Amino acid sequence: MAFAAYPDAIIQLIAQLKRLPGIGPRSAEKMAIWMLQHTKADPLGLAASLTNVIEQVQLCPTCGFFSSHDQCALCDDPRRDGNVICIVEQVSDIMPIERSAAFNGRYHCLGGKLSPLDQIGPEHLRIGPLLQRIRPQMEIIFALGSDVEGEATAHYLMQLLTPLGCSLTRIAQGMPAGGMLEHADELTVRRAILGRRIFD
Amino acid sequence: MAFAAYPDAIIQLIAQLKRLPGIGPRSAEKMAIWMLQHTKADPLGLAASLTNVIEQVQLCPTCGFFSSHDQCALCDDPRRDGNVICIVEQVSDIMPIERSAAFNGRYHCLGGKLSPLDQIGPEHLRIGPLLQRIRPQMEIIFALGSDVEGEATAHYLMQLLTPLGCSLTRIAQGMPAGGMLEHADELTVRRAILGRRIFD
Repeated sequence: MAFAAYPDAIIQLIAQLKRLPGIGPRSAEKMAIWMLQHTKADPLGLAASLTNVIEQVQLCPTCGFFSSHDQCALCDDPRRDGNVICIVEQVSDIMPIERSAAFNGRYHCLGGKLSPLDQIGPEHLRIGPLLQRIRPQMEIIFALGSDVEGEATAHYLMQLLTPLGCSLTRIAQGMPAGGMLEHADELTVRRAILGRRIFD
Repeated sequence: MAFAAYPDAIIQLIAQLKRLPGIGPRSAEKMAIWMLQHTKADPLGLAASLTNVIEQVQLCPTCGFFSSHDQCALCDDPRRDGNVICIVEQVSDIMPIERSAAFNGRYHCLGGKLSPLDQIGPEHLRIGPLLQRIRPQMEIIFALGSDVEGEATAHYLMQLLTPLGCSLTRIAQGMPAGGMLEHADELTVRRAILGRRIFD
């Protein structure tokens, strides 16, 4: 039996949308049809934004955050405290910290974490640029993931940075805001108890 | 306190992605960052697909389905039965019927349904082109929505088509495949009972 199909251009658009994270074949088809049908849809605007983002956005050579010129807005900002550097794994870890409004120093994005299984060694991380930025008396905050690779990366960096005379800290581990004890995993509860603080 | 933000190009991309159906601000941000970071991402490919779809896809002047040339693949296909026309509301109603593999005739897409509240009258639907296609002895299948507007549209068309000497049918209403009685709404159950058929 003959079977109708969408025109090629629609099939290709569905295939492209299906690549997006969290988008399955049904949602991709819905989105593609919506693009063609809905008055609020702006497919050419989306196309232009995608092209712009590739043309204009690069990684800051200093800290590794997204940037549209040589240095990023974070490194350019003279109001930020240059004596504290917060080390994160990925570019996408910076905005959550910014939104917390608890930090006003500089960042350093490693671009990954040590992972022997994936053949990611120290030479794949932005460690050289980090060492160049460090001066004695600085505070270096580790905000790496609390998984095995994050811990290994922190441990490796700690050994490198300890001789440089800066103070090394790590973000607290414990119960998340609004987190119920009954739903928390053992390791989180364990860390919350071991890391308990005096009421102040 | 100084507050970092993404470069403008990223902010614009997030705004564009947020317009998509089912995409909230968080998913839009995740997608935008994924576009910049992930090796599987192909933002320029997606941009090209969006542009192509707008340049190449139009609506078939005969049936109203998507088409990349003058007539659509459905109207061009000589293997399809020209004596049956299935009337649907929207372009996106055609593929579900195609996938059912239960129909091998032609389609006619109205491009909407009568809806006085939204000021959509008969003049806004593709009724003229429908009348031109109809010949006596044809079967016209109504596959409109079973909401009030769909029913009103079917009723209006039935009055127009009855004098033309074709046989008018409508798709069955009843329990969906796999549907449990305990979860079905009253109207569905009522229609399923009133529309019961002899075992065959």
